[in-house]
Amino acid sequence: MTASAITNENTATQTVFIKMALSAWDSHNARVNKLVTSLSDEEWLAETAPGRNSGIYLLGHLIAVSDGLFPILGFGERLYPELDKVFLESPDKAGLVMPSLNELKEYWNKVNAKLSGHISQLPAEEWFTRHNNVSEADFAKEPHRNKLNIIINRTNHTSYHLGQLVYLAKK
Amino acid sequence: MTASAITNENTATQTVFIKMALSAWDSHNARVNKLVTSLSDEEWLAETAPGRNSGIYLLGHLIAVSDGLFPILGFGERLYPELDKVFLESPDKAGLVMPSLNELKEYWNKVNAKLSGHISQLPAEEWFTRHNNVSEADFAKEPHRNKLNIIINRTNHTSYHLGQLVYLAKK
Repeated sequence: MTASAITNENTATQTVFIKMALSAWDSHNARVNKLVTSLSDEEWLAETAPGRNSGIYLLGHLIAVSDGLFPILGFGERLYPELDKVFLESPDKAGLVMPSLNELKEYWNKVNAKLSGHISQLPAEEWFTRHNNVSEADFAKEPHRNKLNIIINRTNHTSYHLGQLVYLAKK
Repeated sequence: MTASAITNENTATQTVFIKMALSAWDSHNARVNKLVTSLSDEEWLAETAPGRNSGIYLLGHLIAVSDGLFPILGFGERLYPELDKVFLESPDKAGLVMPSLNELKEYWNKVNAKLSGHISQLPAEEWFTRHNNVSEADFAKEPHRNKLNIIINRTNHTSYHLGQLVYLAKK
């Protein structure tokens, strides 16, 4: 095999990995989208189980986590950094003022639209570079802590809360 | 760069990606393990939310799905194929006889121990080959439907139910 054929093989391998991770990310966001459009306001405002997080809190939480990806992945400034105080640093029912459900649905769509734009434009080799929450020294020792790994981890995070959000649908 | 240096780079890329997917798989199974050892029998037998799946049903469901990986990944025969009827093909409270909680905990450990053995021995390049639930023709068109992709998808599945299982812990 020539050097250039082998280089192509490496690029093809990277492309397949990226496709695997991004397909899972997209399909889980699509499942949240489906709940955003199908659940009633009353269902979103209810608790996912007695005494547990409400739907609206978990929606805000997912938005804050996805919005946090912009700086971590080098995609620029966050859209809604003010959400962290309410949805990441404080528990549900802490008495803080939340955006309305309609505002949150709009934020969810805007964060995902902007994120998808950046994700689709990132060159393949960039996905395997260091993300901004890991130091250069740590990344040298642990090269799996790259940008694509963040997507894999965040997909699992979305999945975890999806399992709870589906309980909002009345039986 | 020489051809052999580039080949090494491709192998390194594969190794990093395998590490990413298997780390996520292991850490989510470890979180289930933690619930297996920390929740009381009473908690495991309860519903995760009113009218929703019980803990014991979800544990059986996760075991059946992980046990199903043996044939899909070419790791040989399943340990507990009889679980499918109760935990995959029937809903909770269908009136079918379930193994006891202690038996299920033992099955969970045995399936994971056997699976880990196979996973740790699979050569890197094998992870990017076809799994047995996809045809050769489809795999030629969609090379991301490989063995490692199954691990990524199943990790998300475990995450989804973990989000529900944590509701078993009394507040």
